[in-house]
Amino acid sequence: MVKFADRILKIPDDPLNEIMKLSSDKEIISFSLGSPSKEAYPVEFIINATNKLLTQNPESMLSYGLQEGYIPLRKNFIEHIANKRNINASLENVLITTGATQGIELVSQILIQDGDVVLVESPTFFAALPVFKKYGATVIPVKMDRDGIDLNDLETKLIKHNPKLLYIIPTFQNPTGITLSKKRRIAICELTYKYKTVLLEDDPYYDLRFLGEPVLPIKSHDKYENVIYLSSFSKILAPGLRVGVIVANKEIIEKLVLAKSGADTNTSLLSQGICSEFLESGFYESHLAEIFPLYLNRLNKMVECIEEFFPEHIQFIKPEGGLFVWLGLPKEINTQTLLEISSQIYKVSYVPGSIFFINQSECNNYIRLNYSSNDESTIELGMKRLGMVFKDYISGLSF
Amino acid sequence: MVKFADRILKIPDDPLNEIMKLSSDKEIISFSLGSPSKEAYPVEFIINATNKLLTQNPESMLSYGLQEGYIPLRKNFIEHIANKRNINASLENVLITTGATQGIELVSQILIQDGDVVLVESPTFFAALPVFKKYGATVIPVKMDRDGIDLNDLETKLIKHNPKLLYIIPTFQNPTGITLSKKRRIAICELTYKYKTVLLEDDPYYDLRFLGEPVLPIKSHDKYENVIYLSSFSKILAPGLRVGVIVANKEIIEKLVLAKSGADTNTSLLSQGICSEFLESGFYESHLAEIFPLYLNRLNKMVECIEEFFPEHIQFIKPEGGLFVWLGLPKEINTQTLLEISSQIYKVSYVPGSIFFINQSECNNYIRLNYSSNDESTIELGMKRLGMVFKDYISGLSF
Repeated sequence: MVKFADRILKIPDDPLNEIMKLSSDKEIISFSLGSPSKEAYPVEFIINATNKLLTQNPESMLSYGLQEGYIPLRKNFIEHIANKRNINASLENVLITTGATQGIELVSQILIQDGDVVLVESPTFFAALPVFKKYGATVIPVKMDRDGIDLNDLETKLIKHNPKLLYIIPTFQNPTGITLSKKRRIAICELTYKYKTVLLEDDPYYDLRFLGEPVLPIKSHDKYENVIYLSSFSKILAPGLRVGVIVANKEIIEKLVLAKSGADTNTSLLSQGICSEFLESGFYESHLAEIFPLYLNRLNKMVECIEEFFPEHIQFIKPEGGLFVWLGLPKEINTQTLLEISSQIYKVSYVPGSIFFINQSECNNYIRLNYSSNDESTIELGMKRLGMVFKDYISGLSF
Repeated sequence: MVKFADRILKIPDDPLNEIMKLSSDKEIISFSLGSPSKEAYPVEFIINATNKLLTQNPESMLSYGLQEGYIPLRKNFIEHIANKRNINASLENVLITTGATQGIELVSQILIQDGDVVLVESPTFFAALPVFKKYGATVIPVKMDRDGIDLNDLETKLIKHNPKLLYIIPTFQNPTGITLSKKRRIAICELTYKYKTVLLEDDPYYDLRFLGEPVLPIKSHDKYENVIYLSSFSKILAPGLRVGVIVANKEIIEKLVLAKSGADTNTSLLSQGICSEFLESGFYESHLAEIFPLYLNRLNKMVECIEEFFPEHIQFIKPEGGLFVWLGLPKEINTQTLLEISSQIYKVSYVPGSIFFINQSECNNYIRLNYSSNDESTIELGMKRLGMVFKDYISGLSF
């Protein structure tokens, strides 16, 4: 009976919610998540940090805070994260958000209006798409190859669509795991500036590199102050805390602060305090050192299992970090329609590739697998099951 | 150089931010806040609850959570808050938000579009206004008297403007402290239903009643499921945690969940866990019992000081609860222009009344004073200073 606003009617039901429901049975081995390993949560550190913060500084933790964010966290972010990534930032360039999710939301609020075009990599992080659409954007995909977004296709679409925003995940891209080359990063800075398109760089996985050499963020090459940079504590510390960071030029941050004020006043101070301690104590670095072997072993195990249990003619690139393996299966397999059988009968779940595309009927033969959230023996068991799903399907069994 | 979206250009600089800056000098006694007493924060309880939650249930606290909110908190809210207020709700009617601020934001996102009208009490909570406007609303004020919103003026405006939403704070209204009578609450349910206007009831102060008899929320009379109810942990437990609650019909909650998903995925789990423990342990009730004498003494002290130190011909109603005293000063006093002198020379600050009105040039002679956040001797000193500001102004001194 209620007449809802058009903007919310544009949002389809959250596809991940459905997938999560399909994975809720405890017997199901889920490769659907995008979280750190639960065994890797530094629980003791968080307990100690909380006790310290609430004992030494209860008022700062429990009262209203600055909309821009807790000053010690912003300072520690600049010193321990931004500086190490060659990103030039001072306090007025840094806004703390309630997860990087809120970063995408606030940037959309201040930039997008009806009729604007947003360019995204194809495939891309599915949860960003309804947010762009909610604020009136038409979302247009740009091709990728094994080195990331395709510059020719990008320039063609910058010219053709005069987009407001380019949304890009250059490092360990979600879902493909691909890292954009340095050369393309520099070129993209020039291109987006030339065509007056703001670049939104979403970079939650940067420090999750287990192999190869780091490639500095696009923001580190941003001489025009045209890049809005999103960082997150969800993929390394804990997503439940809901802390993200935006780095951008002062004018943009000022508008984001106005949007933040209406959105939730400020991010949970206790969460911000914990993240600040995480950086300041140096525990961030030692935590990374601790989780790397764990994650690398899991990644290696998953890759081994693909080779051992999966059908032939699988396409995939072993990622150098991040949380996901992206897999192309033989064309005849529709991973969207197979998901229900896979979860309910074979007791293993994944994210079907189609949800990462604007045109969801494309690329039905892809899947995204998370390797961080199960131990090696569970990975082996789950991958064996998943291999059976696909092999049984190909051989025409049980379908 | 960036072309911002029209919606964000509609938002003026946050007036409270300016006021906070004017109060940042430690020598200034601030009556500007809307927070609980800092001495009343139950720090030990929060430390113990955090330790318990992180020790017993670290995964639930640190992983991604349900967009709808942490189930134990939603259950405890129903049992310990909703039921006691005669509000009928089951799990599917309850959504946890990042403060009640986010409640206003999400409701606006799903309901308001360009050209819609939102009715508000005049005066009203200033921070809600830019949010309604951001999503395209024209905001129209409805008169109030000493019993709350004026039903005749309301009906006239319901007929004339066919509004999408009526936003109302019926209990210890911000800024006036007025509580709407039961009779009017029932009538408003009928009126808004009749004219197909959704009623947004913002009720953060309900349990902060030190005097008189409780008046049940409008939501308790909502036989048409037309009321969206906002509750908050900010005014009783701690605003820094950023936890609010929305109660509404299932259809509305489903849309709100879609908006919440893009907004910040879920509210900080640690914050939600602490609030859940606060209710489940029974500490909520004993905390109220502990703060009531503290708050009542402060309220009484402030009222005494008004009578002792302020000029004659002051209009005010002693509130029975909430956090504020609302004061009408002699007409010749412009509290907006006096604020700078008051803070910088007399070292006392308040919130000028004009910011609570749609037409901000009206009612320049009002101020809102918070009585919860200073102890009695500080209240006395601050009120003495404030009395001098007004008396000096009237007698033409130092201006």
